[in-house]
Amino acid sequence: MSKQFISIKELALALNLSTSTVSRAFRNKDDIHPDTKKLILEKAKELGYYPNIYASNLRNSKSRTIAVIMPELANNFFSLAVKGIERVAQLNGYHTLIYVTDSLYEKEVEIIEDLYNGRVEGIIMSASGEGNDHRYINKLKSKNIPLVFFDRVYDDTDYPKVTTDDYESCFKAADYLLDNGCKTLAFLVIDKNVSIGNARMKGFEDACAKHNLPEDNALIIDCSNDFDESSSRIRQLLKTRKIDAIIASVERLAVAAYTVCLNENIKIPEDIKLISYSNLSIAHLLNPPLSTIAQPAENLGVNAAEILFDILKGLEPTNKNVILKSDIIQRKSTQFFR
Amino acid sequence: MSKQFISIKELALALNLSTSTVSRAFRNKDDIHPDTKKLILEKAKELGYYPNIYASNLRNSKSRTIAVIMPELANNFFSLAVKGIERVAQLNGYHTLIYVTDSLYEKEVEIIEDLYNGRVEGIIMSASGEGNDHRYINKLKSKNIPLVFFDRVYDDTDYPKVTTDDYESCFKAADYLLDNGCKTLAFLVIDKNVSIGNARMKGFEDACAKHNLPEDNALIIDCSNDFDESSSRIRQLLKTRKIDAIIASVERLAVAAYTVCLNENIKIPEDIKLISYSNLSIAHLLNPPLSTIAQPAENLGVNAAEILFDILKGLEPTNKNVILKSDIIQRKSTQFFR
Repeated sequence: MSKQFISIKELALALNLSTSTVSRAFRNKDDIHPDTKKLILEKAKELGYYPNIYASNLRNSKSRTIAVIMPELANNFFSLAVKGIERVAQLNGYHTLIYVTDSLYEKEVEIIEDLYNGRVEGIIMSASGEGNDHRYINKLKSKNIPLVFFDRVYDDTDYPKVTTDDYESCFKAADYLLDNGCKTLAFLVIDKNVSIGNARMKGFEDACAKHNLPEDNALIIDCSNDFDESSSRIRQLLKTRKIDAIIASVERLAVAAYTVCLNENIKIPEDIKLISYSNLSIAHLLNPPLSTIAQPAENLGVNAAEILFDILKGLEPTNKNVILKSDIIQRKSTQFFR
Repeated sequence: MSKQFISIKELALALNLSTSTVSRAFRNKDDIHPDTKKLILEKAKELGYYPNIYASNLRNSKSRTIAVIMPELANNFFSLAVKGIERVAQLNGYHTLIYVTDSLYEKEVEIIEDLYNGRVEGIIMSASGEGNDHRYINKLKSKNIPLVFFDRVYDDTDYPKVTTDDYESCFKAADYLLDNGCKTLAFLVIDKNVSIGNARMKGFEDACAKHNLPEDNALIIDCSNDFDESSSRIRQLLKTRKIDAIIASVERLAVAAYTVCLNENIKIPEDIKLISYSNLSIAHLLNPPLSTIAQPAENLGVNAAEILFDILKGLEPTNKNVILKSDIIQRKSTQFFR
């Protein structure tokens, strides 16, 4: 099966057609009869002719590829979001390039600058969240490369955004804990400057203010993406303060909190309640089952991709600021006993 | 920031150089002084000149992109493997295109055929596992597109392969359960024809044979990727037979087994032991903590990518059949009480 592939000239010869006619069949031009086009495509498959996409990209400047840029891959939320994006891309006959920033601003800039030259027709991005100078993103406009944000966004740009109700969901989660008698709450956050971290923190603070909680009883705990570092912050917190409940702004902080409680013999939910933003499909199998604020991750991806493909088709998106609702699912980790 | 990008002519004019000199700076040619090249690249960045990658791809037929083809994305094993692949690709200055087959043979064929035209320089693939005609893969040779398999491979092809010790690890897991007195074992599998499913099943069967287990006490249970379907098979099994231990060949089947046991009030490990192939980072937080056979997923990706880049650099891989060792971690789900 090491047969060499044939050239466009050989294909034209086999069909007894001119190379320019054959070439038109691969350019989606209207000036060729559908039957002729069908004949050419079938013969091409049979004989092993494949058009050079780089050459044809040069002609019609279409790569039929979109890029997804996101902070990380090994994460339930982003895996599900990409699944949604890919489904829509495949329906539209597009390829999906996946780029990971590792939450680094410099890497994000480098990736975006690398896309200026037309490798992709559009971009769907969840921001690294750092840096204040977003000129590298706005430059995409002069290259006619549309961008749609999902989840983590830059509020100072006017690109379409698909997010979830971060403020409201965190307000509700805190309100529920306070309604049930919790007096000291801790909010675990990785980056307060990232749009979603900030909105969730504000929801937490406003719920605490509504219940007249003294500031010292509404703690904001700065954690990091490093498991050991976050665990150590949480351990220190639980050793020095009596905390009634923890709200983790991302799944990995809930995992760190569980592990600390397990090691320190702190019982969830008897000694402390715990709820977390999480798309973990096995939250119900944890010990104890974890209460979650679950974002509609896959749907977020679908919505962002649909907006991008509307733009690529020349349509104006009906809504440039889509906000989807998260589900708060109370399980044993926030159970009250009275 | 909607400034138009400049052409190569404008850049050459601004530098008082010829366009051919400027062009050489973007082609990694040696016939240009490093200082001149530096000057050109800096000015290009300053003024906003970006070479057309499709044009330069056409010239040197290099896309500096590799493809990763895998059965699914929302899966801890594959997320980690891609992380390893991306790390090596980035070190080599390559982009990574990610394609998902959803374990469908037709989709795999379509994706591979779509790559014949040079979109990528090389492919790293975990096979869908279906279909016996692998001519579409061997055709890549005539296009000089190297391929490296990881995890799920086609044994009838001679491409380099990076796998784990599936037979040995499953043999050991079953042997341990039988050594400790289990008399009836069930092996949950999704596709017995996929290389890894088959190797694990053979390991299971040989361990049972070593302990002279009657065939009727060494059950192979065919499950699927559908959670409800698999759960129903497992529920039926546990209602009709007294099973001492389950070995799940993939993580999602362990999740189904846990859920069935929880709903049917079957206690792990008191009533039944459970061990699973899994890369779940929170196996220790499950109720009870799950015993796992953990593949070195990220390292598998790194090894596959290193082989691919060796080939792309014209080097002969030192080992075309790398087999990495999995870790068996016994936790409470396989605890014996005596």
